[in-house]
Amino acid sequence: MRRIKIIVSYDGTNYCGWQVQKNGNTIQQELESALYRLLKEKVSVIGSGRTDSGVSALGQVAHFDTNNDTIKDTKFAKALNAQLPDDIRVLSSTIVSNNFHAQHSAKEKTYHYNFYLSDVDIPYFEKIATRFSNQVDILELNKIAKEFVGTHDFGAYCSSGSSVTDTVRTIYDCSISQNDRLFTLSITGNGFLYNMVRIIMGTIIDIACGKKNISIIKQSFENKKRTLLGKTAKANGLVLYSVRYDK
Amino acid sequence: MRRIKIIVSYDGTNYCGWQVQKNGNTIQQELESALYRLLKEKVSVIGSGRTDSGVSALGQVAHFDTNNDTIKDTKFAKALNAQLPDDIRVLSSTIVSNNFHAQHSAKEKTYHYNFYLSDVDIPYFEKIATRFSNQVDILELNKIAKEFVGTHDFGAYCSSGSSVTDTVRTIYDCSISQNDRLFTLSITGNGFLYNMVRIIMGTIIDIACGKKNISIIKQSFENKKRTLLGKTAKANGLVLYSVRYDK
Repeated sequence: MRRIKIIVSYDGTNYCGWQVQKNGNTIQQELESALYRLLKEKVSVIGSGRTDSGVSALGQVAHFDTNNDTIKDTKFAKALNAQLPDDIRVLSSTIVSNNFHAQHSAKEKTYHYNFYLSDVDIPYFEKIATRFSNQVDILELNKIAKEFVGTHDFGAYCSSGSSVTDTVRTIYDCSISQNDRLFTLSITGNGFLYNMVRIIMGTIIDIACGKKNISIIKQSFENKKRTLLGKTAKANGLVLYSVRYDK
Repeated sequence: MRRIKIIVSYDGTNYCGWQVQKNGNTIQQELESALYRLLKEKVSVIGSGRTDSGVSALGQVAHFDTNNDTIKDTKFAKALNAQLPDDIRVLSSTIVSNNFHAQHSAKEKTYHYNFYLSDVDIPYFEKIATRFSNQVDILELNKIAKEFVGTHDFGAYCSSGSSVTDTVRTIYDCSISQNDRLFTLSITGNGFLYNMVRIIMGTIIDIACGKKNISIIKQSFENKKRTLLGKTAKANGLVLYSVRYDK
C-alpha cells in the first residue's frame, strides 16, 4: 500500500464544492471516479479541508492510499489528468509516509479573495472576482485587515449549521493588495471555519465604506455575535491558494 | 438625432468576436438587438475596432445614433444592461458631438495579454489567461518587449487574409508586469493589425525561452516575413483594455 499526496487546482464554478454529496458534482467525487477508472480500485481521496460550492483552488492538497504498484508516484498526476474534466487538474503527485494526512498534518492555509469596485458588473472580472459597489481605499482596507491577525475566537465568523465547537483560530497574515483594478485579500491561518473568509471579506468592506465601525471586530471576538458583522461575500472571488505542511 | 458614446465590457468566451456575422453570436449583434428592443428603432453600433472570437474587453468604445429623445444620455447604460446577456455590460453612456466616431477618432488603444507559466493547465487561471510551458524571466521578457516600441512596419505581424495595405503602426508602450503567478503584457499603440498582439505575444515567449533570437524582431520589420515569428498566442488571454480619444 502506498500513500500518494496530490496538489489539485480547480475552477469551482460548476461544482457543489469539494466534499462528496448525494446531489450535484463535487471535486472529491470527480477525483475518486478518475482514480477508479485508472486503478479499478475504490479509493478515498482525503482533502486538506472542504471548499464550498463555487469556490476555486490553486493549490488544494489531498492524499489517497492505493494497492497499485505499477504507476510511478510522480506519474499519477498525468494519468489522472487524462481522466479528469478540464476544470480539475492535478499539478503534482508524490509518495508520502503513512503518517502524512492531508487534513490533520496541515499547518497553515492561505486563501485569496479577489474583488473589484464598480457600480456595474464587469463581465471579464466576474470570472474570477466579486464586485463591491462601495468606493474604498487600499490603505483603509489594510488597516482593517490587520485587526484579524492573531489568535481569536472566530465563533461569530461562522455560518449557522456548523458543528465545530472549538472556534479559536490563529491568523498569521491578513492583507490586501491591488493590481490595477483588481484587489486581492490574502489571508493565512492555522485553520478556517465554514464561510469564515467570506464573512471577514464582507465585514472589511462594510467597515471600509463606513457602514460599520472598526470596533465591531474586537467586539465580535468577545461576544461572538454574527449579527454585528457584514454579509457573507459571494463564493466566486474565493480561492484556496495553498496549504503548508512541515517539511 | 443624438449620437451616444458607450463604454462596453464583455467576456468574449462565448462570442464569435465583435463584428456582426451571419453565423454565430457577436457582441455588436447583441448590442444592436438590445437597442432594437429598447428603442424599436434599427440602430447601427460602431465599435473602435473588432475584437476576435474569444477576446474580451474591459473598455471597448462604441457609438450609435438614435432618434429617441426621451431617454437621458447617461441612462442608456442602465437601460441597455437590462436587455443584454450577463456577459456584456455597458459601463457608461454619454452624448457626444456628431464629429465623434468610435473608430476614426480613436488615438490610442491598450491591449492586455494575461498569461502564466506551467507544465499543466491551471483551471482557475485558464478563465482569464493563457498557459505557456516555457520557463522565462520577467527582466528578459521586458527587454524583448521594448523592441516593439516605436514606429515600425508590422506587416509580418498580421494573419493572412487581412486586406489592410498600410501596415505601419506606432507602439507607445510595450511592457510586461508580474503579479504573483500571473503575467500581463500591456501594449499601447495608435492601432493594431489583425492578430498583431497575439503574434507579438507568441514571439516574445519564443525569444524569451531561447527558441528564437531577439534579432528577428528588427529583421521582421524589414522583410515582413510572418514565418520568422512565433505562433499566434491563444485568444483567451487577450483583453481590449481601453481606447483613448482627444478630450
